[in-house]
Amino acid sequence: MRAVFNETFQRYLSMIEEHLAQIPWGKDTLSESMSYSLVGGGKRIRPVLALAAAEAVGGNPEKILPAAIALELIHTYSLIHDDLPAMDNDDYRRGRLSNHKVFGEANAILAGDGLLTYAFEFLADPILGQPEKQLRVIREVAAAAGKNGMVGGQVLDIAGEEKKLSLTEIEEIHKAKTGALLIASARLGGILAGGSEEQIEALTNYAQALGLAFQIKDDILDVIGDSETLGKPAGSDLRQGKSTYVSLLGLEEAKHQLHAQTQRAQSALKLFERNFSFLSELAVYIEQRQH
Amino acid sequence: MRAVFNETFQRYLSMIEEHLAQIPWGKDTLSESMSYSLVGGGKRIRPVLALAAAEAVGGNPEKILPAAIALELIHTYSLIHDDLPAMDNDDYRRGRLSNHKVFGEANAILAGDGLLTYAFEFLADPILGQPEKQLRVIREVAAAAGKNGMVGGQVLDIAGEEKKLSLTEIEEIHKAKTGALLIASARLGGILAGGSEEQIEALTNYAQALGLAFQIKDDILDVIGDSETLGKPAGSDLRQGKSTYVSLLGLEEAKHQLHAQTQRAQSALKLFERNFSFLSELAVYIEQRQH
Repeated sequence: MRAVFNETFQRYLSMIEEHLAQIPWGKDTLSESMSYSLVGGGKRIRPVLALAAAEAVGGNPEKILPAAIALELIHTYSLIHDDLPAMDNDDYRRGRLSNHKVFGEANAILAGDGLLTYAFEFLADPILGQPEKQLRVIREVAAAAGKNGMVGGQVLDIAGEEKKLSLTEIEEIHKAKTGALLIASARLGGILAGGSEEQIEALTNYAQALGLAFQIKDDILDVIGDSETLGKPAGSDLRQGKSTYVSLLGLEEAKHQLHAQTQRAQSALKLFERNFSFLSELAVYIEQRQH
Repeated sequence: MRAVFNETFQRYLSMIEEHLAQIPWGKDTLSESMSYSLVGGGKRIRPVLALAAAEAVGGNPEKILPAAIALELIHTYSLIHDDLPAMDNDDYRRGRLSNHKVFGEANAILAGDGLLTYAFEFLADPILGQPEKQLRVIREVAAAAGKNGMVGGQVLDIAGEEKKLSLTEIEEIHKAKTGALLIASARLGGILAGGSEEQIEALTNYAQALGLAFQIKDDILDVIGDSETLGKPAGSDLRQGKSTYVSLLGLEEAKHQLHAQTQRAQSALKLFERNFSFLSELAVYIEQRQH
């Protein structure tokens, strides 16, 4: 089972990396700074989710690639802006210097702006060939990335940094900051690949549980992971006094909730054919990941 | 003639302001900062251009309002980001404190991100009812606002600040930074209102000349305008050693070129019905404006 999962994951990643590598960048500073962050690695979880959702509803993932790529452009722009001195002020991202440390603040802001804008060119690509569905996807992705989604979540996150937050509050932040775009990613794949409304709803429930599981696992790894595997100092949330699932629930209860969300994600998939098990195994992969 | 022009201008402005006033903002910081800059006045030249282009091809401007509004959201986001300390570092915009002076840098960056993202929700609004044309408009607006348009122009502008630029270089910057979105605005109106390709091409030529005229006039006003009417200190380009049409061509030749572009804009309109003279008079209005 695990071999098939890894093979499928690699197949998706190859499709994504190949498509990203085909973006025609110029030799100007802006192109350099945009591509610097885009090719800087990362789990590509949003486009992977979109491709897998497309396959889950019986579609061909290849055909929705430009739309899936757009999700990675949006995610990358959000990381560039989050890292800025005025925001989280991070000098490193995935072991490399963050965008503004290499290109300066002005160029980093503009690289983010450029990636966000470019994403909508991909979503509107005529090669996708489904104008009505593409418009629906554009509305959903913009809503998930915007003021009531990712951008709104980042505002809440910054405002909450110096306060002690309740579980409800940290869930609200995660839902907006990361959950909404993960849901939009799965829905994008389902919608563009011609899934039924029932299937799209199932993908929504799956992605919502998956997003929560992802976040709980992040908080757990911060406490029990080792810094080398994580690629960042373990225990940094605790030292910064951040409210996390572990600080609020304790380690055992957090693990329990992680497992419950993993099961919720899996049970949302009942609707789909048994011979496509990637999404179900992705939930287990996230529960068990070590970094 | 001028009375009809003013009346039409006011009619467009009322439609735009009413539509902007109907945006359902929350009471949160992000909504406050986004709406602070959006309702802060300004000429609304991009949505006006879109509405007039729609009317020029025989369409109903009311019907393209959500798309026209999107142009103002994009323009507003660009001003917020341009004013940031890392960019032009402007404390004031249109006589009011700039966004980051009121809400802080992090919120200003996010307000800009939120406005840009929200714009695409408007462009994909199902009420516009023309999926294929909307997708075309989304591609064109994203291209005009992105790395090869507005964002790219801002990068060139920042990079050129400390250099002496040639006329070709300042034209390249203006074309990307402001020209592309003005052209996209006129095209948006023409496309969504069902204009022919010939009409859309004419609107493109018109908007290109209008954009150049606008910029040349800006440079002239910086030299001969009075600070009170301008709402900013006159002569500031000169003092900053900025390369402008006036510094490169001299005042008389700049005026000559302004007039030539105004005439070019007007002659692009031959195709349209004689009883719709707004766009032609808009070119004269821009040539003669005092601020």
